[in-house]
Amino acid sequence: MLANSVDKALRKRAQLVVPGGMWGHLHANKLPEGYPQFFARADGARLWDVDGRSYVDFMCSWGPNMLGHHHPEVEEAVARQSSLGDTMNGPSEIMVELAELLVETVAHADWALFQKNGTDATTTCVTIARAATGRRKLLVARGAYHGAVPWCSPSVVGVTAEDRAHLVYFDFNDVESLRAAAAEAGDDLAAIMVSAFRHDLGRDLELPTRAFAQAARELCDTAGAALVLDEVRAGFRLHLAGSWESLGVRPDLAAWSKAIANGYPLAAVTGQDWLRDAASRIFVTGSFWCAAVPMAAALATIKVLRKDGIIEKLALMGGRLRDGIAALTQQYGVALRQSGPAQMPLILFEDDPEFQKGDLFCQVALACGVYFHPRHNMFLSAAHGEAEIDEALAAAEAGLKAVAQRFRSSARLAQA
Amino acid sequence: MLANSVDKALRKRAQLVVPGGMWGHLHANKLPEGYPQFFARADGARLWDVDGRSYVDFMCSWGPNMLGHHHPEVEEAVARQSSLGDTMNGPSEIMVELAELLVETVAHADWALFQKNGTDATTTCVTIARAATGRRKLLVARGAYHGAVPWCSPSVVGVTAEDRAHLVYFDFNDVESLRAAAAEAGDDLAAIMVSAFRHDLGRDLELPTRAFAQAARELCDTAGAALVLDEVRAGFRLHLAGSWESLGVRPDLAAWSKAIANGYPLAAVTGQDWLRDAASRIFVTGSFWCAAVPMAAALATIKVLRKDGIIEKLALMGGRLRDGIAALTQQYGVALRQSGPAQMPLILFEDDPEFQKGDLFCQVALACGVYFHPRHNMFLSAAHGEAEIDEALAAAEAGLKAVAQRFRSSARLAQA
Repeated sequence: MLANSVDKALRKRAQLVVPGGMWGHLHANKLPEGYPQFFARADGARLWDVDGRSYVDFMCSWGPNMLGHHHPEVEEAVARQSSLGDTMNGPSEIMVELAELLVETVAHADWALFQKNGTDATTTCVTIARAATGRRKLLVARGAYHGAVPWCSPSVVGVTAEDRAHLVYFDFNDVESLRAAAAEAGDDLAAIMVSAFRHDLGRDLELPTRAFAQAARELCDTAGAALVLDEVRAGFRLHLAGSWESLGVRPDLAAWSKAIANGYPLAAVTGQDWLRDAASRIFVTGSFWCAAVPMAAALATIKVLRKDGIIEKLALMGGRLRDGIAALTQQYGVALRQSGPAQMPLILFEDDPEFQKGDLFCQVALACGVYFHPRHNMFLSAAHGEAEIDEALAAAEAGLKAVAQRFRSSARLAQA
Repeated sequence: MLANSVDKALRKRAQLVVPGGMWGHLHANKLPEGYPQFFARADGARLWDVDGRSYVDFMCSWGPNMLGHHHPEVEEAVARQSSLGDTMNGPSEIMVELAELLVETVAHADWALFQKNGTDATTTCVTIARAATGRRKLLVARGAYHGAVPWCSPSVVGVTAEDRAHLVYFDFNDVESLRAAAAEAGDDLAAIMVSAFRHDLGRDLELPTRAFAQAARELCDTAGAALVLDEVRAGFRLHLAGSWESLGVRPDLAAWSKAIANGYPLAAVTGQDWLRDAASRIFVTGSFWCAAVPMAAALATIKVLRKDGIIEKLALMGGRLRDGIAALTQQYGVALRQSGPAQMPLILFEDDPEFQKGDLFCQVALACGVYFHPRHNMFLSAAHGEAEIDEALAAAEAGLKAVAQRFRSSARLAQA
């Protein structure tokens, strides 16, 4: 294919100087054939690959670009702060403003700390909980993603048993298994860590039940342990005050990253007062954690989120996409499941254990200029308007048509 | 003092919304009274605090700003890439160029991987070494700083014993203790991690001896373990091909951050071919690790380092500072030790166990508009020219005068 010759040439060069040619969650080998690995440009809800092909993007850099690329208010704040200073010998005034804004915005938050990676934030939460309680055990859901260092990485390659010595597992939304895990931890229970909702790769997204959220809260209250909400992926896409506000459950600690600074590198931990002292006694730091530009970006981003009703807009456009796809599946007789909040949708096909239908659907959509993901939740941004959704629906229609055609005929062949 | 009223007001606000008002290595409580916590602006070798006081800065943001703030070639590359895209669904072409440039520049490097924090890089090195060897033990020097997560943090608050279960300690530059640690690890030795030179807080800096470096290399060769050089602090300030090039010893893996992108958030791991497969098998990632802007900054930074002879310039200006201070100590009869490479100098006073002399020296220099550090190694940048060094020497003279006066009279009082 000449259409991706620049990408192919870059992959060849990358093979020589990067192990495996790429790594981590952005590795194109996790996507169907034809997806680009390298990108040249991004603007609003649109991406351009190195071969000049453009896409309406439904991954938003895997979450960060919630207002769309080059949002004017964010870029203005960034330009202003860049001209002053970024990484200095201490933070700028903006750090205080940002912490104040988080405390004002996030319901459970009495204070905030800043980092770079989502993993920095989840790891800091665990360290604070252990420091505050003097205990060691951490309850996490089986299959949940909380970062990519040895204690939590989805891979155990290069990981020792001791890295996970104090983890106790439960099943998301299963109150009994949560209680059993807490009982196993006993009086050594430091914290329960839960994702804002279940978003394990390749399976339907699942919102927490009220009973599950309340059980987690009660178990922590009883034990004097910390309830840690991992908001890295969902944070500010469900509810500005915290993803569990609608359940009436507030965490003791929350880990944030991705969308909080519209693509600029920042993470944060927010916490309740009883953890303030512990948070001040642990030692966590990084060379760029107090850089002023990403904080200026976060300040501008959160102000836009608050004043412009972004979450409602995302839900509305996500709903338009979901309804449109639902209608198309009827029309073409293709069975699929759409799960998760409409602003973070996942599409999985029925009877598709190896994701062949999902892959084909996405490949056809990609050829039509729409970047979907076949097994990871997707993300909407504020730059997705009706035009972008309608473009996505046209691509989805082509994808569904192809799935109907290919798998109808293969079903016939199997019968023959 | 009216002179720092804005800083004081900000600290009060910060106390309410940030545990302890600040955290980590940039916490001003680690500095003598009078140092600002918050900064408004930076340019070249100069910093402005929020009260409008300006300083010739010898911390360079604790390392990152090696070319000086707002270096034109770096800023131009950043502006160009920012207008295209930063955090996208995959890296830009620049990631490949940067990996190629690192492989070309760093002697031991056959490949590179990128992260955000120095701690990401050191942790990734450990994970790769364990994946490659199937072993667990990691040798580290007592008192060395390799990051701020539980396995390596200088604090054990919130840390469990298991986080450090496989660490075995040796003393820097002590071949016998290194051999003993390797013997203790036995056939479970995965890696030896060593800082480019000994830069433990509050004690004289110490370059590695050739015998020590060679012993580390030989022990790894014999055991089939990985020699990991932690270049986070010293990287590209001693030698572009690697800090141990002058010793004739090359590591298997190296961790980089701080200066590689002149203040933009980036870290890197470089490695030899035999670790390439392991590096491709572990899972490490972060939301912002492939952002294109910091990589564009790194590409520009390293090109400037290569073409403009920056290390030589740093050493020259560091030498001018060191010689000038040595002459002044003679003049004022104050005994102090200057250690480390001239481009990363440390000044510690004789007979000063509680750093009272060092603190006074630095406070007086600060009042004269020069930002020194009393117990951590300092950093020169390419923006430090003769004028800045002479300004620093004038401030140092005032500081030495004050030390001579205060401690001469207190010595007299003690005799009385």
